[in-house]
Amino acid sequence: MSSIQEVAKKAGVGVGTVSRVINDSGYVSDKTRKKVEDVIAELNYKPNELARNLFRNKTNIVAVITPAIGNPYYATLYSAVENRLRKYGYKTMLCNTIGEATNEEAYLEMLERNMVDGIITGTHTLDYSIYKKLKGPIVGFDTPKLNDDILVVTVDHEKGGKLAAKALIESGCKEVLQFSDATTKNYPFIKRHRAFAKEIKKAGITAREYKPLMDRFDYEYIEENIEEAFKLYPNVDGIFATDTHALLYMKKALSLGKRIPQDLKIVAYDGTFILDTAYPSLSAIVQPIDELAKAAVDSLHAIIEGERVDRKTKVLDIYFRQGMTTNRKEDLYEQ
Amino acid sequence: MSSIQEVAKKAGVGVGTVSRVINDSGYVSDKTRKKVEDVIAELNYKPNELARNLFRNKTNIVAVITPAIGNPYYATLYSAVENRLRKYGYKTMLCNTIGEATNEEAYLEMLERNMVDGIITGTHTLDYSIYKKLKGPIVGFDTPKLNDDILVVTVDHEKGGKLAAKALIESGCKEVLQFSDATTKNYPFIKRHRAFAKEIKKAGITAREYKPLMDRFDYEYIEENIEEAFKLYPNVDGIFATDTHALLYMKKALSLGKRIPQDLKIVAYDGTFILDTAYPSLSAIVQPIDELAKAAVDSLHAIIEGERVDRKTKVLDIYFRQGMTTNRKEDLYEQ
Repeated sequence: MSSIQEVAKKAGVGVGTVSRVINDSGYVSDKTRKKVEDVIAELNYKPNELARNLFRNKTNIVAVITPAIGNPYYATLYSAVENRLRKYGYKTMLCNTIGEATNEEAYLEMLERNMVDGIITGTHTLDYSIYKKLKGPIVGFDTPKLNDDILVVTVDHEKGGKLAAKALIESGCKEVLQFSDATTKNYPFIKRHRAFAKEIKKAGITAREYKPLMDRFDYEYIEENIEEAFKLYPNVDGIFATDTHALLYMKKALSLGKRIPQDLKIVAYDGTFILDTAYPSLSAIVQPIDELAKAAVDSLHAIIEGERVDRKTKVLDIYFRQGMTTNRKEDLYEQ
Repeated sequence: MSSIQEVAKKAGVGVGTVSRVINDSGYVSDKTRKKVEDVIAELNYKPNELARNLFRNKTNIVAVITPAIGNPYYATLYSAVENRLRKYGYKTMLCNTIGEATNEEAYLEMLERNMVDGIITGTHTLDYSIYKKLKGPIVGFDTPKLNDDILVVTVDHEKGGKLAAKALIESGCKEVLQFSDATTKNYPFIKRHRAFAKEIKKAGITAREYKPLMDRFDYEYIEENIEEAFKLYPNVDGIFATDTHALLYMKKALSLGKRIPQDLKIVAYDGTFILDTAYPSLSAIVQPIDELAKAAVDSLHAIIEGERVDRKTKVLDIYFRQGMTTNRKEDLYEQ
């Protein structure tokens, strides 16, 4: 491989001039620039990116922190984020935090160490104290507002909870169970659980709640939740849960011979691809994943570029998608 | 944030000595090392990682190239790879190549530019010519053997094809359809399609084949495949397909009122988490994803560390998991 010295020698200029051409910084005449570029092409010279980054103090890398990339919601969101980051020329570094708080801290330190230009975090396992002192370009997905620097992007969870309750109430449910989260922290998504329970109670329907740990995504654990929920609340006729819980609950109910939607109504939350393989198809509250990714990346890029960005939480819209697990107004399915 | 100069001044040593302590290189007396480390701790100094990397010519970053991180197989594999890389102290950079060959090339160039220490690639969209000239630590997941430097990690696809055929033959199928791949390139996984077709024909069963494009993972496309397959081969009573095709085929069959396994038997290939939400549960050929990740990462690390690593393709074992979509010998389900 050619070196910068060879390029400089062949072009008849100094190493500093070659560096200025490569990094597009400082004054270089058009004629000299052309000559240097021609030699670079001729020698097939590839600048050492490490040296370039040191010069610019930029890496064009963004770290994305997710609790579990194997989870359909995070896999889809991550994919959309990576696509959007690429449009701005960023490369994506992934951090799976599942059960490893120390791992998360190591990634956050990368921002201080200039290894990454910014961070998008959708973490669940976070230790608040780490984020409190963190400075720099950071966007949180559905995280609490951890410090003044962090911009949070989320959806209208309250509306989501209300829409789910409406679908189950209109389907004639008498006893409804929601799988929520065993957290005491102030995540935006908690609003959907509160709004859901409030609407269900207001309609005079029995409201049950089961609280799984929020940082467990493995199916074994979710199946344990469902086994226990079936024992605790055997007469439930309506379910509100995230996609995976909803699917595994339906699977269990079908294996017990329950008819859907006659015996059991279900509304899933998130509306990711994992629902699309199920039969019957699930009614769902759908998160606008592409828009979430766009909002997060566009904001982060603006912050990295030094623009003044309003740090007020961005709340995106959410909607209900009719499937076969709740009744339509037209009563397509017999009761 | 403190600078290296402040550390050197406070410790009463030169900047070079501080650098040697940080990078653990060259001679520094125990006493001086202790003093420098104490000052680093006192001032909470974080070395600029860019400068450090330039010094060591190592980034501790590995790029992982996958066709589509949203696909359950790649999401699971990627998650396992990232976990394993972390054990060796590597951070993971993700490259989603779906439909973007230029994007892949940009990542491969990072190896030449010292931005990453190695590459694990499970790409499908690759342009052979790029890989042919590529040097350095590279491990391919189920890729063709593209050059002498690349170590390929794969599974015993031939055995997988045979096991799938056996399950459908023993379930009494008369006309079997497999979804294979429309590729002319020499991917290891092609062996499963050949072995499957051979066994089915040997048993005197009608063998049908549908060839989707191998770089399309979106459900819309897969559903089109299935619609067309239903029209082309309406009398099929056995299916062999990757997880997503298998699930979406089952969904379509259930929506048409077909009974499973009485009217239709199915064997899925890959055996990822996405199968676990389906009812009835699918019989599947299961890939050993954690072992694949381990084999790939351990080999890559050894190559990066300069060890002599045999570049012979590593072929891991694969097995059949009984579900409810093929008959058991004991005939648990009525015919």
